[in-house]
Amino acid sequence: MVMLGGSSNVQSKWKRKSAVTLALTVLTSSQAILIVWSKRAGKYEYSVTTANFLVEALKCALSLAALARIWRNEGVTEDNRLSTTVDEVNVYPIPAALYLIKNLLQYYIFAYVDAPGYQILKNLNIISTGVLYRIILKKQLSEIQWAAFVLLCAGCTTAQLNTNSDQVLQTPFQGWLMAIVMALLSGFAGVYTEAIIKKRPSRNINVQNFWLYVFGMAFNAIAILVQDFDAVMNKGFFHGYSLVTVLMILNHALSGIAVSMVMKYADNIVKVYSTSVAMLLTAVLSVFLFGFRLSLAFFLGSTVVSVAIYLHSIGKLQR
Amino acid sequence: MVMLGGSSNVQSKWKRKSAVTLALTVLTSSQAILIVWSKRAGKYEYSVTTANFLVEALKCALSLAALARIWRNEGVTEDNRLSTTVDEVNVYPIPAALYLIKNLLQYYIFAYVDAPGYQILKNLNIISTGVLYRIILKKQLSEIQWAAFVLLCAGCTTAQLNTNSDQVLQTPFQGWLMAIVMALLSGFAGVYTEAIIKKRPSRNINVQNFWLYVFGMAFNAIAILVQDFDAVMNKGFFHGYSLVTVLMILNHALSGIAVSMVMKYADNIVKVYSTSVAMLLTAVLSVFLFGFRLSLAFFLGSTVVSVAIYLHSIGKLQR
Repeated sequence: MVMLGGSSNVQSKWKRKSAVTLALTVLTSSQAILIVWSKRAGKYEYSVTTANFLVEALKCALSLAALARIWRNEGVTEDNRLSTTVDEVNVYPIPAALYLIKNLLQYYIFAYVDAPGYQILKNLNIISTGVLYRIILKKQLSEIQWAAFVLLCAGCTTAQLNTNSDQVLQTPFQGWLMAIVMALLSGFAGVYTEAIIKKRPSRNINVQNFWLYVFGMAFNAIAILVQDFDAVMNKGFFHGYSLVTVLMILNHALSGIAVSMVMKYADNIVKVYSTSVAMLLTAVLSVFLFGFRLSLAFFLGSTVVSVAIYLHSIGKLQR
Repeated sequence: MVMLGGSSNVQSKWKRKSAVTLALTVLTSSQAILIVWSKRAGKYEYSVTTANFLVEALKCALSLAALARIWRNEGVTEDNRLSTTVDEVNVYPIPAALYLIKNLLQYYIFAYVDAPGYQILKNLNIISTGVLYRIILKKQLSEIQWAAFVLLCAGCTTAQLNTNSDQVLQTPFQGWLMAIVMALLSGFAGVYTEAIIKKRPSRNINVQNFWLYVFGMAFNAIAILVQDFDAVMNKGFFHGYSLVTVLMILNHALSGIAVSMVMKYADNIVKVYSTSVAMLLTAVLSVFLFGFRLSLAFFLGSTVVSVAIYLHSIGKLQR
């Protein structure tokens, strides 16, 4: 129906939405490829917290560079000026804080679940994002879109099944609780970021990103102090860095910016679909790059995810 | 919309449809339980073809018994008289012949696929039934109902995944071809039976069943000659029969009649959903009866099947 409206404005919005979604999908899937590559190249010995800090710093720098270009072309306006008010930024630390708590919890959950099991439990994010999207942003999903969302979660999990997956069912109560809390934290952080960015639609996204990433840097600095203070002090900030590490930081920074763009021009639902497709894309690419074998479960999961995407799109038209 | 029509006729039709669907679901799931039980009790040594023949004979007898009661209560009419015309019964041998060919093929497919792999390939039936239902009966399924059908197939297969399932992907070309041919044969037989039964809506179902089963007996007699002539001649018709065998024959006869009833009062689509739910029900019952463990794949598959059933029902309302 919206498409029939057919103004060039609608079309350019749709193009921008598609472009940022595509960018996020490609970046996320190459991200996983880089992780596999770095693991193949040998265990990485660098501090993850320092890398996270550099990712935030790089995103800050990229936002500033984009802003500088805009200022040169369009001049400084009310919407693209960097200076801000307490009223605008007082909620910006919240997502960064939530991610920090989630990342700290991640260290404790591995007492109850192994890494492949955690990958499977992470799919709870899909459901928590849908529920919080509904509650916090008060946006409706149609019945069919809810069904599609449940299918997306089941399909992604199916695609990731392996011979040891049944161990997930033996996860003790504390493990489930932490997995659910972590899903809620990351879902809340995502939805909250969307709320912040969408609150001021005319405000330039690069300014909004800049402030988000400033707080990201601050909170990641705290993470360095909490987790890797000794390692950084003894071995240096950049210990264990390699070419792959640098590429991963670059990739994380770009995909972080893509996530913000998706929040601005699309929404968290699009983000969840995009990262799910990226997961499937990674598996297919891994067949060619690393000689991985695709399982029957992968084909079944991919089928279910494809149907979910189809249902989500026709569910929208029927509302 | 149909429900809002609200005539008691519509309601009683809906009740009858629900009753036969429920009967089919319960009978099919107890059927699988009996098979597991008979396997646990030791390998069954009887000839499967003689059992199949007895199933057809029992169905014939039950149809006649039901007819006798109807004749006593309502008298013999044009619709419930047993005598028939060549024009009415000339198509009746076709489903029986198709099933016979399929059952004979079954012996050859095991050269390429093992039994658990065959269970998984059997889910192709779901897709072939949907496609043939569309082509032969010319009944439309909505877009959402097609999506639901693909999900039903993926969900059932997912629920049946086990650690060796990936071997199915290594099935040679001949195996795939035979599996597809068998799926088409059984889909065609099912849809064709529905076409035969529905062609004369006012004709009593017990008469229609009687003639279907007469041809079923004839074709199963051929199967005995082809496959088990020596065993029957040397060891006798009833060699290796046990209590479980008798119960299985009883169950197969009753579920066969339930299938015919579903064809008369509902359709092949309902049949496919009903037998899929029965498969899930069997697994849950096996937990209590045989101490089986449910896998994560089973939970995921069940979720997908549930969503498929939901989508099928809302897909109908929106047409």
